Amino acid sequence: MDVKVINAMLKSLVKVFNETIHSRVELDKPEISKELAKGYDLVTVVGYNGYMEGNLVYGFTSELGMSIVSSMMGMPYDKLDDLAMSAIGELGNMVSGNIAMNLEKIGKPIDITPPSVIFGKEIHVNVDGLILKIPAHLDKFTFEVNMVMRE
Amino acid sequence: MDVKVINAMLKSLVKVFNETIHSRVELDKPEISKELAKGYDLVTVVGYNGYMEGNLVYGFTSELGMSIVSSMMGMPYDKLDDLAMSAIGELGNMVSGNIAMNLEKIGKPIDITPPSVIFGKEIHVNVDGLILKIPAHLDKFTFEVNMVMRE
Repeated sequence: MDVKVINAMLKSLVKVFNETIHSRVELDKPEISKELAKGYDLVTVVGYNGYMEGNLVYGFTSELGMSIVSSMMGMPYDKLDDLAMSAIGELGNMVSGNIAMNLEKIGKPIDITPPSVIFGKEIHVNVDGLILKIPAHLDKFTFEVNMVMRE
Repeated sequence: MDVKVINAMLKSLVKVFNETIHSRVELDKPEISKELAKGYDLVTVVGYNGYMEGNLVYGFTSELGMSIVSSMMGMPYDKLDDLAMSAIGELGNMVSGNIAMNLEKIGKPIDITPPSVIFGKEIHVNVDGLILKIPAHLDKFTFEVNMVMRE
């Protein structure tokens, strides 16, 4: 795993969360994994291809999702309706777009696809490839950002 | 909506299901929609970009998922574990790859991303764009194939 790829992700996460929801995200040490965590309520998937190919997978709880949507909209928002899911998708799109920009700077250009936002219960996402997992914290919540790379 | 795009999807669905699980899939009339159906247990998402960009979204019930996996493996399979989800993802990958090939033939080339397979309860997928929805039947089961195109 190229440390420059990891740094591209870390920089984008901090920058986009800071600019979009005006909250400082705290990141734990990145891990390499073969499996995504299970049990999220809200998952954003953004595919990518180009120099590398795979998916960026963002896993949130509904509580964090509503907190993020409230910050993005500038008003309390307490249900995950279509508008809220679109906002969560747009956040995934912005982070992923910023990651793509940082990867281009280091000579690893990728194209990203539009986001899909999945809401449900006991969600398990199966992907094929090596997973770069970044555990993250926002206020009292934790979430995960995963870059899945097909080998 | 270009009728050639619709035909590319229809042809790929029939061909790949026929070759992979040796079952004839029956397709209903395609519809244009702004929303994906809710309540699936098993959803495969394959992103694409190029001439058009968006996502191919396949929605199944777990019963149909297990029936498909049993056909693909050539033996009864009654749980949706990681192996089964990988098989479902591979089917989505094959159908999507075939659609890409048919779109290239009509001068609308796209690149597809690796599949993500989402398993959970009461799944709702939110996407941004126009949806070409193809209701399909396989034996006693129904499922849906959706091509979401960002406008």
